[in-house]
Amino acid sequence: MRPKHQTTVPHLPLPLDGHGALAEQIARAIKRVILEGKLPGGTVLPATRALAQIQGVSRETVVVAYELLAAEQLVTARQGSGTRVMENLASARTPRSSPRSRPPSRFAARARVFGPSSITSLGPDVRYNLHYGSPPLQSAFYRTWRRKLAAAALQVDCGYPSVAGHPALRNALCDYLARRRGVVTRPEQVFIVGGTQQAFALLARVLLDEGDCAILEEPWYEIAWRTLTAHGAKVLTVPTDREGLVVDQLPRQGPRLVLVTPSHQFPSGVVMSLRRRLALLEWARRTEAWIVEDDYDSEFRYQGTPPPALRSLDMHDRVVYLGTFSKTMFPSMRLGYVVCPESMCDDFLRAKRFADMGCPSIEQAALATFVRSRQFERHVERQVRELAVRRNVLMQELRASLGDELVFEDTHAGMHLVAWFTRLDYAGLARLIALARSTGLGLYPIHPSYTRRPRHPGLLMGFASLGPRELREAARLLAQCLRKVLPAAARRPPENRLPRGPALGRPPVTAN
Amino acid sequence: MRPKHQTTVPHLPLPLDGHGALAEQIARAIKRVILEGKLPGGTVLPATRALAQIQGVSRETVVVAYELLAAEQLVTARQGSGTRVMENLASARTPRSSPRSRPPSRFAARARVFGPSSITSLGPDVRYNLHYGSPPLQSAFYRTWRRKLAAAALQVDCGYPSVAGHPALRNALCDYLARRRGVVTRPEQVFIVGGTQQAFALLARVLLDEGDCAILEEPWYEIAWRTLTAHGAKVLTVPTDREGLVVDQLPRQGPRLVLVTPSHQFPSGVVMSLRRRLALLEWARRTEAWIVEDDYDSEFRYQGTPPPALRSLDMHDRVVYLGTFSKTMFPSMRLGYVVCPESMCDDFLRAKRFADMGCPSIEQAALATFVRSRQFERHVERQVRELAVRRNVLMQELRASLGDELVFEDTHAGMHLVAWFTRLDYAGLARLIALARSTGLGLYPIHPSYTRRPRHPGLLMGFASLGPRELREAARLLAQCLRKVLPAAARRPPENRLPRGPALGRPPVTAN
Repeated sequence: MRPKHQTTVPHLPLPLDGHGALAEQIARAIKRVILEGKLPGGTVLPATRALAQIQGVSRETVVVAYELLAAEQLVTARQGSGTRVMENLASARTPRSSPRSRPPSRFAARARVFGPSSITSLGPDVRYNLHYGSPPLQSAFYRTWRRKLAAAALQVDCGYPSVAGHPALRNALCDYLARRRGVVTRPEQVFIVGGTQQAFALLARVLLDEGDCAILEEPWYEIAWRTLTAHGAKVLTVPTDREGLVVDQLPRQGPRLVLVTPSHQFPSGVVMSLRRRLALLEWARRTEAWIVEDDYDSEFRYQGTPPPALRSLDMHDRVVYLGTFSKTMFPSMRLGYVVCPESMCDDFLRAKRFADMGCPSIEQAALATFVRSRQFERHVERQVRELAVRRNVLMQELRASLGDELVFEDTHAGMHLVAWFTRLDYAGLARLIALARSTGLGLYPIHPSYTRRPRHPGLLMGFASLGPRELREAARLLAQCLRKVLPAAARRPPENRLPRGPALGRPPVTAN
Repeated sequence: MRPKHQTTVPHLPLPLDGHGALAEQIARAIKRVILEGKLPGGTVLPATRALAQIQGVSRETVVVAYELLAAEQLVTARQGSGTRVMENLASARTPRSSPRSRPPSRFAARARVFGPSSITSLGPDVRYNLHYGSPPLQSAFYRTWRRKLAAAALQVDCGYPSVAGHPALRNALCDYLARRRGVVTRPEQVFIVGGTQQAFALLARVLLDEGDCAILEEPWYEIAWRTLTAHGAKVLTVPTDREGLVVDQLPRQGPRLVLVTPSHQFPSGVVMSLRRRLALLEWARRTEAWIVEDDYDSEFRYQGTPPPALRSLDMHDRVVYLGTFSKTMFPSMRLGYVVCPESMCDDFLRAKRFADMGCPSIEQAALATFVRSRQFERHVERQVRELAVRRNVLMQELRASLGDELVFEDTHAGMHLVAWFTRLDYAGLARLIALARSTGLGLYPIHPSYTRRPRHPGLLMGFASLGPRELREAARLLAQCLRKVLPAAARRPPENRLPRGPALGRPPVTAN
């Protein structure tokens, strides 16, 4: 028999982690000490009675703990010679160290450079949060949805889902897209994804190698820019004007894709003209680039019908069409869809399979019955009515309390307004945002969506998640904060008033 | 006034697509003809009365269709001169062509090479489907789950989800992992993902550049191999023996990660010995590689307690631990979790954000209450009891009807058995699988998980989704088919019987 090591367990009583039975906690604590190399092989553990006393537990508890350690082969118990730490636990002698790390992947390195996004919600503690992207809350809708989900939970196949999406949902979307967006497609070209974000990520994988060029509209959707940049694309921006993307300024060759929001440019709100749409399609045909049409909020239209999708004009199968349920239903559902050109379908399906094998089935099945029965469209109509009220309240209140200090154009669509300050400078904007935050008002600047910031600062004002009373209060608070921030001299009506609000999506003058 | 073009609309009556109102369908059909360039600018459309007659619709319908086209600026209507196609529709003159395509991304090109996977289910029409991965169906469980989902639907925040996962679920998992797997971790290191597949995809993004080396165990999980290969990794395999991965055969330097299944090697079933676990951890520390521990089915243990996770032995924070709800709950839920080393958390979070902004909230919230209340553990216990019955039935029936023709070892764990034929060759295996399929029996070969196919063919037999009666019938059918496939001469008991079944996870002899 080998001589007993006389080392005792350090730092008694052992610190316990609080999860589950005491015996398990004691076993884990001893295991840790062994693995940290503080109890060499052969060390005899304290007698069960002694350790029980130190830990303030029953002897039986320590006996069980030692048995657990023996089951893990970390100790051996032999009659008469006590419980000993196993020999040859290779790692036991290596002291715990913090891991040195080889450099991360290039993707991870690129993703590390981004700071907090300017369009991320300031947080739930902000009482009047003019955040873009938060949907309206409607308890009646959630009751309906709850019933749909519960019904679907009993019906869906519990096995692996269809990678491309639930067949009934793909079918229902085909009918919906033809009727509402003029997009005639086959179910085989419709893919269900985990929101527009996943659509961006999968399209990047399928279409872009590191260093490939992708085009965004300016102003842009900051998260699309970051996603493509993290992927490794070289992202260029092309300006928009009153007709949308200035197609003439697109590079003649090189880009693999251009991401556009023709129904309601994000964030400016401009609708792309038919002339530009046709020119863009012709450019894509000529350059063999793909057009990604992000139709993120075309359902919310307060006057007239929404312009048909770019995809409905596409005779050369160059347009990938993206739709989302984050706005019409709710963001935490994480469902959206992609209509793929025929030649891209197989690649997209494989990318989806490797990404996550498909979206969860139950919510897809519930959504399929919701869309097919047209309850979805009636729900959207109710939402549009409610949003129209909110939007009008916000616009009226802003006009009433801010007058010419803030100008905006009415695009009759969407879940947000873009408003420009006529006399505030950027230092003032920073003070305004901080002051507003301290009074419970959440404001979001628009200039991070521009390469060079516009001469006048502006706000991206989401109004969907606040009720009329809150929106009134938000406008009142904004006016109050602005008065405090504007220099006294500037509070008088300026002599040199801008003749009108800056054109939508085109800041009045580009600063240097 | 310009002279009228006399061209008429070709191919009347117009083919309609069947979606929505007739007027919309007619408008889309005309739009298509215009965009195909078959109606040059200035062409006068047929008089509404004439077209109505041809189409067999009311004149009013055609009037509305023309108005829809006018709203899209594709035609103009002027009093007295009819409805004309708009001039300068740039793309109208370009004939419809199938898109030429530039080469796809390297990712898409790599993903194109894979054929159908050998472990994909043969399909729902297979009556006795010994498919691995299909879970047991329990209607009582679905009733419980339905209530949980419905309750969660009313409670969750409908805004964007927490990217890392629902906080209550991450907390509940910390407690579960400490008690059941010996993994003590903080909620900040637990990430909710869309199943193990998404964990693989995100880890690949965070840890591997194209060309980087990753190691898999042999035999391997085919889908992991494909995922890493499609990502661009150079995937090497290292053999396993009765103690699991042969750590001595790992390269001394180079690999960024090694993916292992220490609790129950997939597919062989071997449990990695403590000695090998410690050696692997030491190797990872020395080479600065990451260990990805895929703990895919450790909940299903029919004798003794499951061995604690490799992560519970990890003193150097080199192990990424993966768990899934696809086996314990159901695959179409698409939820799993990742315990990240501290130094990897931020990168992983960003990768998840760019992939899809987080998993759906409602199912996460429902799962959080299920895990926290320990209903989840009771559910798993019931499942284990049921699976133990199924497993025993299958083993007994195979022994009874096939005797020494098929040998397997009992690993007391999991949702599948690995069985080896003692006298069948690979040509016979192919015939057997085809014959079985024609009788409604779904069989899955194991050799695609090996670099060089084992001398004797084997099967990966999932038993979880079939009831005892079906499993008996499956074994009976297998014996029946095997008798038809084995050459008459071989049907006599062979002289040169193998002394015992081939070692688990180590085919008796490796063929050339």
